[in-house]
Formats: sequence, C-alpha cells, structure tokens
Amino acid sequence: MCRWLAYSGDPILAEDLLFRPVHSLIDQSLHSRMGATTTNGDGFGIGWYGDDPAPAVFKATEPAWNDRNLHEIASHIRTRLLFAHIRASTGTPVQRSNCHPFRFDQWLFMHNGAITGFHEIKRDLMLAIDPSLFPDVEGSTDSETLFFLALTFGLMDDPPGAVERAVGLVEDVGHRHGIEHPIQMTVATSDGSSIWAFRYSSAGRSRSLFYSTDVVALRQLHPEVPVLRTLSDEARLVVSEPLGDLEGAWNEVPESSWGVVRAGDDELHPFRLTPTGAT
Amino acid sequence: MCRWLAYSGDPILAEDLLFRPVHSLIDQSLHSRMGATTTNGDGFGIGWYGDDPAPAVFKATEPAWNDRNLHEIASHIRTRLLFAHIRASTGTPVQRSNCHPFRFDQWLFMHNGAITGFHEIKRDLMLAIDPSLFPDVEGSTDSETLFFLALTFGLMDDPPGAVERAVGLVEDVGHRHGIEHPIQMTVATSDGSSIWAFRYSSAGRSRSLFYSTDVVALRQLHPEVPVLRTLSDEARLVVSEPLGDLEGAWNEVPESSWGVVRAGDDELHPFRLTPTGAT
Amino acid sequence: MCRWLAYSGDPILAEDLLFRPVHSLIDQSLHSRMGATTTNGDGFGIGWYGDDPAPAVFKATEPAWNDRNLHEIASHIRTRLLFAHIRASTGTPVQRSNCHPFRFDQWLFMHNGAITGFHEIKRDLMLAIDPSLFPDVEGSTDSETLFFLALTFGLMDDPPGAVERAVGLVEDVGHRHGIEHPIQMTVATSDGSSIWAFRYSSAGRSRSLFYSTDVVALRQLHPEVPVLRTLSDEARLVVSEPLGDLEGAWNEVPESSWGVVRAGDDELHPFRLTPTGAT
Amino acid sequence: MCRWLAYSGDPILAEDLLFRPVHSLIDQSLHSRMGATTTNGDGFGIGWYGDDPAPAVFKATEPAWNDRNLHEIASHIRTRLLFAHIRASTGTPVQRSNCHPFRFDQWLFMHNGAITGFHEIKRDLMLAIDPSLFPDVEGSTDSETLFFLALTFGLMDDPPGAVERAVGLVEDVGHRHGIEHPIQMTVATSDGSSIWAFRYSSAGRSRSLFYSTDVVALRQLHPEVPVLRTLSDEARLVVSEPLGDLEGAWNEVPESSWGVVRAGDDELHPFRLTPTGAT
Repeated sequence: MCRWLAYSGDPILAEDLLFRPVHSLIDQSLHSRMGATTTNGDGFGIGWYGDDPAPAVFKATEPAWNDRNLHEIASHIRTRLLFAHIRASTGTPVQRSNCHPFRFDQWLFMHNGAITGFHEIKRDLMLAIDPSLFPDVEGSTDSETLFFLALTFGLMDDPPGAVERAVGLVEDVGHRHGIEHPIQMTVATSDGSSIWAFRYSSAGRSRSLFYSTDVVALRQLHPEVPVLRTLSDEARLVVSEPLGDLEGAWNEVPESSWGVVRAGDDELHPFRLTPTGAT
Repeated sequence: MCRWLAYSGDPILAEDLLFRPVHSLIDQSLHSRMGATTTNGDGFGIGWYGDDPAPAVFKATEPAWNDRNLHEIASHIRTRLLFAHIRASTGTPVQRSNCHPFRFDQWLFMHNGAITGFHEIKRDLMLAIDPSLFPDVEGSTDSETLFFLALTFGLMDDPPGAVERAVGLVEDVGHRHGIEHPIQMTVATSDGSSIWAFRYSSAGRSRSLFYSTDVVALRQLHPEVPVLRTLSDEARLVVSEPLGDLEGAWNEVPESSWGVVRAGDDELHPFRLTPTGAT
Repeated sequence: MCRWLAYSGDPILAEDLLFRPVHSLIDQSLHSRMGATTTNGDGFGIGWYGDDPAPAVFKATEPAWNDRNLHEIASHIRTRLLFAHIRASTGTPVQRSNCHPFRFDQWLFMHNGAITGFHEIKRDLMLAIDPSLFPDVEGSTDSETLFFLALTFGLMDDPPGAVERAVGLVEDVGHRHGIEHPIQMTVATSDGSSIWAFRYSSAGRSRSLFYSTDVVALRQLHPEVPVLRTLSDEARLVVSEPLGDLEGAWNEVPESSWGVVRAGDDELHPFRLTPTGAT
Repeated sequence: MCRWLAYSGDPILAEDLLFRPVHSLIDQSLHSRMGATTTNGDGFGIGWYGDDPAPAVFKATEPAWNDRNLHEIASHIRTRLLFAHIRASTGTPVQRSNCHPFRFDQWLFMHNGAITGFHEIKRDLMLAIDPSLFPDVEGSTDSETLFFLALTFGLMDDPPGAVERAVGLVEDVGHRHGIEHPIQMTVATSDGSSIWAFRYSSAGRSRSLFYSTDVVALRQLHPEVPVLRTLSDEARLVVSEPLGDLEGAWNEVPESSWGVVRAGDDELHPFRLTPTGAT
C-alpha cells in the first residue's frame, strides 16, 4: 500500500527527483492518484549509493511531506543510484525498522504490496530464513521478511531467481494455510550497480509499475522540456506511479514481469514461480 | 486547515468520541469530507478536565491515526469535557508546541483556520500581547497568537467579548498591512465548565461548524439508535464536521456567530467585531 | 541496564510515584546511583490498571525526563497498580515496540538486565515460543522474547514456575552455544491483582532489587514523614533502586529469589531453575 | 549547558569527527567530563557546507547517541566546514526548532550557555530584533534570540562587532531587570569560509572552550599518531571540550576572547562589550 521510486543514471541531486517533479513522490504521499491508499503518511525512507559500496539509508516515521530533515538532506545528496519509499502501514507498527528501503551489506530492497494473512504464516516464513541471517531481521513487516527470504534464496548471486524462489515459498506456505492469493507486490532491489524491479501478484492483478522511456528518444519527442537536457542518456526511473504527465515518458511494466536497469541494455522478462521444494 | 471536536456532558470514555463514531475525528484525519485539506496528518492533541481545575493535554506530532499512545490513553480517560484537534499545518513547523489545544491556567483553546499574511503581521500581533503573558508563548503558530491576544483582551472574564476584541485587532492590523481578509476561523475555548464556540471569517465564508441536537429530542427521533441511550440529556458536541450521518443530529452554526454550551440553556449569538482602539 | 518501579496499593496519582520522590525514577533516568549505566535515555514506558481487566500502556522513545506527555498523563492517572520502566538500550533499536512494560491480555512484564549473546541464540529462543504466540512478538529485544517464553511456559497459570522454566530454557540454550552466564535479570510481572518480582543471574551477581517496608511499621519508625500518612497500609513498592534515603524503608531482595505482592501476606521464595526438557 | 564542535579544513568525513575520536562529541553526549550538565540528551544538530553557499542542517530531538540517521548521514557527508551541537535544555521545549545550529541565509550559529532570567527579559530582547527578521524566529530559546540579535547588529558585515553589540544589549536589558550576571556563553558562527568563536560571561567564569594546535606542529610532536597524517595542514577544530587526551593538542581560549579560523593566519582578540545605546 506504498509508493516508491528507483533512479539510476548520472549523479543527480536527490531533491530534483523527490521534490521537483509536478507529481513527485512527496506529492503522492499526500494524494496518490493510483495507489490503493490515498495517504502514505506512515513513515518513509531513502537509500543511496555514494563512494562506498554500501549504501546509506535515511528513514523516519513522520510523513515525508513534513520532514524538514528530508528536505535538507535531499538538497545535499548527489547520487547515481537512489531508492525512495513512502509507507502506508498495513497494520505493523510505524517505526524506523519497518520503513523501507531495507539494507543488507550493499543491497537495498523495497516493496509495495502485502503478504496476505502474514500474521498467520509469519512463523513459517521466518523459519525458512537462513539461521545465520535470522537475527538481523530488525522489524516486523512482511516486506522485510520477503527481503530476508530472497537473501536466503541467493539474492546476491541471482536476484531474479532468488526473488522468484522467495515468492514461490510465500505462495506454497500461504496455500498450505488456505490462503488463495498469498502475495501482491512490486519490488525493487539493487547491489549499487543494477536495479532489478518486479511486478507480480498471486491473483494476477498487481499494483502499478512503470519505467521511464529512454532519455534520447524522449528528448526527440519533447525538445521543449528543459529537464530532459539535464538528464544523462543512461538515466532511468522505475516508479510505482508516473511523475508528471509527459506523454510517451512512461511505460507500464507488464503483469508478472521483472526487468533490470544497468549500464548497457535494459531487459524485461516474465516472472516465473519456482517450486522451492520447501514444502 | 484543521478539524476539531468539543464534548460536554456526563463523563464518557474518550475513545467513544474519538474512535467509535462512523465518521470519527480520527477517520477525518485521513479523509475529511468537508475540510479545505483532505489529510490532517501534521500532529494532533486532546485536552480534558478531570478532578483538578486545570486540564491535562496530550499532544504529539505523529498523525493521529497511527499514534498508539492516543489509542491507549483514550481507552482509559473518562471525562465530562473533552477537546480534540487534528492539524494540517499551514507552514509553521510540526512540533508539539504548535499542536492544539493550547492551555493557559484552566483554559483550553483550539482553532481551525488561519490568519492571512501571518508572517508579515506576526510582530505587530505579538507586541499587542500583554507583556506578562508574552514569555509564555511557546510555539510559532497564528493560532497560539490568537489565543494569547484573547487572553490579553480578557478571555477569563468575558470570553465572547475577548475573542471579538482579539479578532478585531487582527482585522485592524491586517488591514493596515493591506490584507483584505485577515482572518478565517472556527474556535473553541473552555474554562472547564462551559464551552464557547466561534465561527467567523473576514470574507464571510467561514469553515464549517456544527453542534449536536438536544439528546432528548434526538432520542425521540431515533429510538432505534442505541448510543443515544447512553448519552446524558445534557451531552453536547461541537464539531468542525459531523460525525456520522444521523438525520437531525447536526445543526450548522450560522456564519458570524458564537455560542455557549453549559449547564442550563445553551445560547447562540451574532459575532460582533469590537474596535480595539489599538490602531 | 534499565531501571524500573512497581506499585500496588490504594489508588495513587502516578506523578506522586514518578516525579515527587527525592530520588525518583525520572531523576534516576538522568543519574542512576546504582545501575550499570548512568543514563537511561533510550525510551520509557508505564503500564497501569484502571476499571478494565486489561492495563493501558504509554510508551515513548524520548528520554523520560523531557517527555511532556508523561508529565501530563502522570498528573491525571490514579491507579492501584502501576509499572514504570526507563530504558538504556543494549543494542536493539530505540523504538516503541522495544520499550517496557510489555503487555499480553491482562498481563504486564518488564525487565532489567540482558540475555548474553542474544544475537546468536535469538532464533533458538524464538523457536521455543508457542507458535500461536509467535506472531504477537512486535519488537526485537531479549526482554520481550523472555516474556513470550514465560507466556509459553504458563505465566498465566503459574507465574513463578513459568519464569523459572523460561530462564531455565535460556540457560540451556545459552550453554549449548558456549555462553557461560546466559542471563542477568530483575523482572516484574502482574495480572492486575498481584505483582511477582524476580532477581536472578547465571553468575549469581544480579542487579539490585528492593521492596518497601510495611507502611504501618514505617509510620511508627518515622512519624515525622507526612507522605507515609497518605499511603494505605497495603501500599508496596518494588524498585530497582531505592527512592529517597529514608532509613528502614527499603529491603534488598536476596540474590536468586522471587516474591509476590498481593492482598494479604506477601511472600519471598528462592528462585529455582527448572529443567525444561527442551534440549 | 550544551557541547559543540566546529571544524574547518580539507574535506573530511563527518563521522571521523563525530564518532571516531576517543572522547568524541557523541561520547560526551552521554558523559561529559567538563560540562555543567553530564548528560546532553535533549536533541542535537549538525550543519555543514557543501557546493552551495547555504549550509544544510540536520537536527533531531532524540539523544545524539541513539539516532541511527545521524550515523548514516555522518558516514556519507564529506565537508570542509562542519558544526555539531548536542543540547541539554535549560527549560525550553525539546523540539527541532530549538536545536542548534541555527541557520540564516548562509550563516550558522550555535551556543553553549544561557541568558539568565530569559523568561523575564525575552520580550525586551525580541523587540530589539529587526522587524524584518522577527517573523523568522522559529523556536523559543535564548540562543536563537541571541543569534537574531547578532544578525540585527550586523553579523553579516562584522561578526565580532555584532556579537559584542548583541551581548552588550543582553547585559543592558538584564541589568535593567536587576539581573547581576545576564549572560554565559561560548558561541560559534560561520559564513561558510571563516569560523568565529567567542567565550564570554558576565561573571567572568565562562564555560570551557578550546582550539586545536596547528597540525604541522602537532605532527612533529606526535609522529606516532596516524590520524594527524590524514588531517590537512589547515585543519582546525574549536570545541567546548577536548576530544581525546593528546598532549599539546588543545589550547584553551582565554576568558573574554574571540577568535577567527580561516585561510591564512588565525587570530585571537579580547571580547569587548559595546554599549548599544539601546537603553
């Protein structure tokens, strides 16, 4: 029930992504046009990569729209890879450890959606987390559990496969508990050089997900829009909801798909559930 | 740009007022039907009278809808006079000292609306506050300034007259600064036994204000509604927006009026600007 | 590394317990005389019983000494059974769900001390929690885990036995992981009518714990102290550190003991580790 | 009653200044050796200069020692001029707008100490603030008032003279109200290229203030200390309390003095009260 944004490209000031666009993520926190919930006021977070391999995260429980520190920091962070997330809680407490993006080593992870009946199947899911990772779970959300399942299933080596296996496990465990449609999600994850984005739901009616059109093409389409001249050719955004209304700028990620944004060609593939053998 | 509620009557559990009604104040904090702003997520406060003459206040900067302490306290406070307020900031910081209701001695005060051009006329308004009261101003809102002006002009002796004089001063100072419509407000104030409520705006288009119908009459009208049997005959609510859709339950306070709720007969009067002689 | 207080007796204003005494718990939050940590600024909580069987809890992440809401509420809560706790984190995040007292149904629980090597043995301990209780764990502390283990081992039926079994499990699991002294604790728990207090540590060097002398005896000893006249004959305090310096007022709970405070005679017993059969 | 640090030199990671030193500012927030108050847990703030002329500020009301966002940001901010401040409130609320450093345009300002009897003389002091600056006062502290008085008296053109005149006014107003020793302070202010530091108190017993020895000299004195090799020749720290115990590293700023740290030679001068003509 959240909203998120992932950016990759030449270093850009965070505020140019978060506050400047007409229908920016911060605007969306007050009035989403497409989300299941119109207010996303239950905390927020940003994660970004700088000189270190490990990203920094800044997360807080206030609504993003009135956090002055977010404005301050966003006006001084210049980054080539940024994640931003605004949260609408589905029941778990509003606390920093429940805010996205989650981090492990040099990986970031954020999620929009929910695991159905999470309260009932939480224990089974947590038992499937690698024992060496288990104590690093800090919060109480379904999203963080999904992240740790993906880590358990090899996120660092094969991100698409690991997410497919993690989701497969959630489906298996959910079905065993009589849950018809166990998961609903869009997900983004990164290791600091590529961004993987996923759109999937058990019921086949996933929340929205869009990626930005190639900047070179967009510039030819809209020579009158100055911001496009400042974006690098490689710049790419993946968002839960389009920023602004620029025609031709946004492409919907198809139902049950995943894509990768990276130097060279981007890719888009079908999302395939992998039997986990866990049941 | 806020929403508020004032209750007077037999002792009642705060949660029965704040969380139980169909279109409760907490619901309104997420989705107001009538307010100028649809989300009131910039802090909240409640004030209530117990055994002491001085009221207690509980205020916080989180959105009311996800503050667990508010739920806890509301389920253990039984009070005969309650103020509750949810805030949508018009620019001043989201901090406890800017949350309503404000308190001075045994008085509570809360406000929905704004002083136009407050940044420009703040100094002139604050200079008009009694020097002995000046250092007790803790926050930075137009609303608290209005409260201290009312205290300066005799709120404790003549609440309607004091508010009229305070508003008169705001009009005078505003006009001197070329502001056409200096104030927009609904206000409630109490000394612990009566509640005075005000509806006024320079432009004659004030925010909404309603008071509840006499409970005895309402019970005859709706014998099928159980909650009416639990309310005492003297129970009265004044609200910025009706709770629920019960026909005949809510009466609009007319434009430019003030009323008083107290033991014995309630009253409703026109609001008259008083020249302050301050200019 | 925390400090706590438990009160049972005639209804008393919370602020008389929390703020009035010379060396009050709030004073201690800034400058403890006896604690392992001199500052307890990582959140606080109070829990109290009113008309309902279930207690209310008010918890926050600010230091107790500068939380204005705590002052407000304490001056309006009159209760016959109060728990109060100030936290010094041993590493887990400062968030509301990690503040004591913890609550389940009508039970409260608070803890001073630590489970050694908790990060390593957390998974094994959490697996021992009853699966039906598992999803109700909200935070990430060793203390809450201990509470849920006690609930698993029958806290509601046999509080002393359940705590002994929970501690026995922690000892077993710790020893299996090569931890010499797995636990250090003083604990208080209540169902709303009795208070059970525990003092134990694997190394036999537990943190301090005191209970107040019978008020009748204390009044004879100190006829000059007015506050003693306002306390009821049954009033009893259990504290991690004495409040004030009144001679004869405080008795140390012996190492490896538990006691119960309730209507009728209080009791004091040795704390016996019970093999859990869990290993 | 606070502690602060100001750094100027080659760009350095904020965490190297805030968290790395043996007796770092964050350590001091828990256990100050020299301050009047041993715990500084009532909020904190940092301000730093990047590419823009205007500095960024990050301030929060939690104790600095447990704010995870501070750790995150400090590990990603590389700056040539940093202010950091930890607060122990002398009575005004713990809220972001009362945390230091304060900012106006490209200026930062922070203060340790107090204006005696501030509650009584606040109105007179605020009336002396330039009317065009008055509405920009956001908080309620004596420190922010002192900053705005310095701005009023020409901080941007002549920092030492403006602070002398502002302090002169505080002395005058205080004496008129019968306050014997109206002010106690160490202050730092910067425009992004120089740092001015002040030590003064009416009673001639000011809080401590130190500046670091020239790095070139220090390196010769301590060839064995590796951190000195990483500091640039121009690096200079001004601190309310020495970091670490390195012999010869710290020099006390004399009572009633001010100094300036900048490219080229640093200077140290006597602080002279200037009659303000305000009385």
